[in-house]
Amino acid sequence: MVNFDNALAAAANAVDRELEALLPATEELEHRLFDAMRYAVLGGGKRLRPFLVVAGGQLFDIEMAQSVRVAAAVELVHAYSLVHDDLPCMDDDDLRRGRPTVHVEFDEATAILAGDALLSLAFEVLADKRTSVDPRVRSDLVMALARAAGGHGMVGGQMLDLWAEENPMDESGIVRMQRLKTGEMIAFSGEAGAILARARTFERQALRMYAHDLGLAFQITDDLLDVEGTEAETGKSVGKDLAAGKATFVSILGVEAARERVRMLAQQATTHLEPFAGKADPLRALCEFVINRRS
Amino acid sequence: MVNFDNALAAAANAVDRELEALLPATEELEHRLFDAMRYAVLGGGKRLRPFLVVAGGQLFDIEMAQSVRVAAAVELVHAYSLVHDDLPCMDDDDLRRGRPTVHVEFDEATAILAGDALLSLAFEVLADKRTSVDPRVRSDLVMALARAAGGHGMVGGQMLDLWAEENPMDESGIVRMQRLKTGEMIAFSGEAGAILARARTFERQALRMYAHDLGLAFQITDDLLDVEGTEAETGKSVGKDLAAGKATFVSILGVEAARERVRMLAQQATTHLEPFAGKADPLRALCEFVINRRS
Repeated sequence: MVNFDNALAAAANAVDRELEALLPATEELEHRLFDAMRYAVLGGGKRLRPFLVVAGGQLFDIEMAQSVRVAAAVELVHAYSLVHDDLPCMDDDDLRRGRPTVHVEFDEATAILAGDALLSLAFEVLADKRTSVDPRVRSDLVMALARAAGGHGMVGGQMLDLWAEENPMDESGIVRMQRLKTGEMIAFSGEAGAILARARTFERQALRMYAHDLGLAFQITDDLLDVEGTEAETGKSVGKDLAAGKATFVSILGVEAARERVRMLAQQATTHLEPFAGKADPLRALCEFVINRRS
Repeated sequence: MVNFDNALAAAANAVDRELEALLPATEELEHRLFDAMRYAVLGGGKRLRPFLVVAGGQLFDIEMAQSVRVAAAVELVHAYSLVHDDLPCMDDDDLRRGRPTVHVEFDEATAILAGDALLSLAFEVLADKRTSVDPRVRSDLVMALARAAGGHGMVGGQMLDLWAEENPMDESGIVRMQRLKTGEMIAFSGEAGAILARARTFERQALRMYAHDLGLAFQITDDLLDVEGTEAETGKSVGKDLAAGKATFVSILGVEAARERVRMLAQQATTHLEPFAGKADPLRALCEFVINRRS
């Protein structure tokens, strides 16, 4: 696992440098906007999605410089979604990655605008020739990210999540909500390398399925940590789902069955990697990482 | 002007049909999101930007079906920006186009998410082969829209506008704020036809400059209407800038000089159209329309 930890850190560092370069400090009158964008994006995080993009790209010998551009776009979208989801009228969270959330550190209007600008920037990054010299690739990346992030993806999932507060969902409802809210963006992260390489459809599809299983496993471990974790470990408020009486995988399945589901999904995820043989070992290690995560 | 009114209505109808098709009613659990998106987008409006896209495309014999796709993307972004700008923590507007704003008709969380999903959908529309079979065109459109809509464009302008509430701006400050807040998206609308046609750089640039002048003239007429218009005419709250003690072109220049500035900018806008000879007559008529608008 030492090699895996190193690879995870390497991807995180590379994407952090790219994000720094994409969001230079500015002296413009509207610098508050960019200050908030930088705060939201450069606040750390596991950078799970960047690792997925980079490791997926390595299957097709995509250059790190290209993968990192796509990884940065994914992180911009991920950061924007956290900023908006944390708002008082949404999940009303004050703490994220051990720091005040953006609307607490700045204000609500700035948080909304920073999120908006991060989303546009993600598409600007993908449409740039530095991401790929092939315009078909750029256009395909934009299409896939837009679908993953939009109303039939992440945003639709957040709407469902809010709806669920007053309409308790069963297991299939929660699976659907998570597939939209986090699964589609994780699936995009998984398939991005195949898009960059213009790989064959079955390869792109296999990586999507791998990432969907992995993403769901990751989400269930999130629910487990909300029950079993501490704020010091996770860097965010815990016990919120329970307090809100919200149905989660853990409240429906119970802790033990939820843990078993994580192992099953991680196992299933690896079966989709068979076509890629040994080249997919980092993606297999990622499954182990998700099973064992404590934060 | 009868022909111009017809042409404006034709562009508005065509883009409305496209937006209807892009946002079908849905029975999904998260239908509230799509209901809010439809409400935001299909609530009318002058559709000035769609006309600009369509008339710009006609200079290069771009098919209406293509122009209308780009026009729809522009309207999706425009609608999202209005939904977010109307929020309580931003401009706090209850009325828009004679109807309750989205957060009043639905709720704040839904309004934020609907805006977010509209923005992603705009990029999805541009990256689609139905917009252009040439991937270079799709990628160029995405890049130009992302820049116009983002932190160095529309969102940056809104940040400046909020900043100005506590830091009164001079004329050059207001020009800069408007260039970002509304000018960049109007410039994109003007140049979109040239991007679709892969026209020469000087043509694209001329259309950007035309649209920038036109957009500023339009904005000044907005300020004039805020002083002189009625809610019945304009369909939105009036007198708000004055009540907020906000610096506008009218508060700085006075009504008469502001009117003169509108005429001057409209005149200047037409000078950029010379390379296009008679084909640009609809764009010239648009200048007349802006000078004479009463709502």
